[in-house]
Amino acid sequence: MPLTRLQAIALDSTDRLAPLREQFDIADGLIYLDGNSLGVLPRATAARLQQVVADEWGRDLIGSWNSAGWMELAPRIGDKIARLVGAGAGELVAADSTSVNLFKVLSAALAIQRADAPGRRVIVSERSNFPTDLYIAESLAREQGCELALLQADEIAPRLRGDVALLMLTHVNYRSGRMHDMAALTRAAHDAGALAVWDLAHSAGAVPVDLKQAGADFAVGCGYKYLNGGPGAPAFVWAHPRHVERFWQPLAGWIGHAAPFEFTPGYRPAPGIARYQCGTPPILSLAALECGVDTVLAAEPLGGMAALRAKSLALTRLFADLVEARCAGHGLAVTSPRDDALRGSQVCLARPEGAYAIVQALIARGVIGDFRAPDVLRFGFTPLYVGFADVWDAVEQLRQVLATQQWRDARFHLLAAVT
Amino acid sequence: MPLTRLQAIALDSTDRLAPLREQFDIADGLIYLDGNSLGVLPRATAARLQQVVADEWGRDLIGSWNSAGWMELAPRIGDKIARLVGAGAGELVAADSTSVNLFKVLSAALAIQRADAPGRRVIVSERSNFPTDLYIAESLAREQGCELALLQADEIAPRLRGDVALLMLTHVNYRSGRMHDMAALTRAAHDAGALAVWDLAHSAGAVPVDLKQAGADFAVGCGYKYLNGGPGAPAFVWAHPRHVERFWQPLAGWIGHAAPFEFTPGYRPAPGIARYQCGTPPILSLAALECGVDTVLAAEPLGGMAALRAKSLALTRLFADLVEARCAGHGLAVTSPRDDALRGSQVCLARPEGAYAIVQALIARGVIGDFRAPDVLRFGFTPLYVGFADVWDAVEQLRQVLATQQWRDARFHLLAAVT
Repeated sequence: MPLTRLQAIALDSTDRLAPLREQFDIADGLIYLDGNSLGVLPRATAARLQQVVADEWGRDLIGSWNSAGWMELAPRIGDKIARLVGAGAGELVAADSTSVNLFKVLSAALAIQRADAPGRRVIVSERSNFPTDLYIAESLAREQGCELALLQADEIAPRLRGDVALLMLTHVNYRSGRMHDMAALTRAAHDAGALAVWDLAHSAGAVPVDLKQAGADFAVGCGYKYLNGGPGAPAFVWAHPRHVERFWQPLAGWIGHAAPFEFTPGYRPAPGIARYQCGTPPILSLAALECGVDTVLAAEPLGGMAALRAKSLALTRLFADLVEARCAGHGLAVTSPRDDALRGSQVCLARPEGAYAIVQALIARGVIGDFRAPDVLRFGFTPLYVGFADVWDAVEQLRQVLATQQWRDARFHLLAAVT
Repeated sequence: MPLTRLQAIALDSTDRLAPLREQFDIADGLIYLDGNSLGVLPRATAARLQQVVADEWGRDLIGSWNSAGWMELAPRIGDKIARLVGAGAGELVAADSTSVNLFKVLSAALAIQRADAPGRRVIVSERSNFPTDLYIAESLAREQGCELALLQADEIAPRLRGDVALLMLTHVNYRSGRMHDMAALTRAAHDAGALAVWDLAHSAGAVPVDLKQAGADFAVGCGYKYLNGGPGAPAFVWAHPRHVERFWQPLAGWIGHAAPFEFTPGYRPAPGIARYQCGTPPILSLAALECGVDTVLAAEPLGGMAALRAKSLALTRLFADLVEARCAGHGLAVTSPRDDALRGSQVCLARPEGAYAIVQALIARGVIGDFRAPDVLRFGFTPLYVGFADVWDAVEQLRQVLATQQWRDARFHLLAAVT
């Protein structure tokens, strides 16, 4: 039996993680269930950016490359993110976009396989993987004469045969919220002689990840979702130490050089993950990203990712339970897995008619989720700033939108440029 | 006969561009001659970033992709930069780093040559080109079985023979300040059947560039030098309309897709230059870049790039003249070209001994230039915020550092992490 609103409030009052919400600027009354798309603004970010802009750039100018440690920013943030995803210090770096980083790691992984197992030409991925992952893989497959095998989630493990070079998956699917078993699939890939490349876009800061324990080969991830780094924040990239120095990645820019300030004409890659940097690091964006990552690290004294995960599961379970109990008879189906082991930090609903308009009507009521064509209502739950009463209230708003058929109002059917 | 200080002040008082300095926050007494490395902070930037952070991200959150026009930012900035480099509207876009953009355009140019002239395997460039350009070219050459021919500036035109696929040059050399004749070299490349790829890192906002008139094939450039976009600002990329739709660039990310929000599994490149975007655009960095570009566009009613160029030449000529007249006998050589047609917006000096320490001593006196190993003192002149009296005072400080041998002081010999 799902909770009453009073019981939800009581849960918030005993939630040890609830004070973490004070790290964020969230408008009163706003229920933000879209941190899986863009995390909210940390309170620290504006002041930090002001410092970087006015003092470091404005006053100290070029000297800040030394005095403000600008060159250390990307590796330092990398070390912080590493603590969230089971990677070691010095193994992970913040750089470029998820797409660009995926190009780097797929290129490196394919180079390893060309050297070790040249007959393998298949890249296996999930058909409903986030498109940019598929596009980057398609581009490399085209260039290198490989084949991209796109499968349903359940078809992936059986397809890991002797012709497979790489398994490339997003750990938590952006559409369904379904989470793959990283350790089991990595093991299956390795058993078949393939390498495993993981996109942690919907995992880093959202669910516990242990890249080293899982034996993963390469990983990338996103800075602007659960890491709260701001719109279009720099992404991150990790390579297992057993691979990192075997080959260059092809984006051989000067910041990945062993001695960038020697200005020598020949490329000599930096040791370790530093070679996965490329151009001059984007200092303003990195400064904002660090503030975002720090909001997640602030949970470490309270139990860290394990505690965040426990709350996240409680939030998503409550949301799904309440939708099924309180919105019954309105044609909504909970399509994200109910099994905790298979669910990320989001819940997707489906409705054959009106999904887009229902999301718009909810937004007008201050409940922010998003729509994914053709029929998905998507809700992300960031335990840093979403509480149990928020979940209860969101479902109540959804119930009202459905019960009153408010979503049929024409204004909720206007398609915005970006949905 | 070079000017007296009073004459320099008089030149400033009649300089129609002098009021443009009011667009910037520059500390009193600071003479900043390093805008070729990192442009100074525009006054508008802090407030604009505050708006993006607090209102667009903080308050409106994910809705800002529509309501704040975040998707339009990169193309809009691209159109603005296009006005500075002789490109048409819709032909240029702000994205990624110079290094990443160079990878895109070199890949595209090599793909064109593979299709049209598969026997051509040589990429010609300048040995003293900025290293990241050479590293990216080296990486692609390795991958595609091409050869990189690195030459002295004067050897380049004669080397453009039938085996050359690409000519890749930085228009204004970062070390010497020497400017190539873009139109003549592009013509020579085309006459030889090669394509011409230009890096405008030290040109955009510094010297007039007319990509279309020169018939250039591809170009990239930097946002944080003369465009004042902030440390590690996004870069830009241009492809001539005759090439832009012939091939994908390999970084086939979702923002370069024809319909990114349809979330379809197969890549279909966007029409035109939009396909040279890759991952989610970095909104904070782009907002700062736009403020920087606007400081250059503010010169348009005052004569635009032609007026900026006339002042830049007057500044660099004065600096070189004053150094030769007032610092004579101290072993300094002006190594940048004295011929206006061959000089960018910087002047380099060389001294066999003490170059690093002299730069440090100048910095301690509030005259910011930089050092390039082994013996180069490098000074950039941004006519938006550098005046004639600044030039006079900078040379006077240099004269004093040399005359007093202050640079021999041990504290000026401590090497910082980044020089």
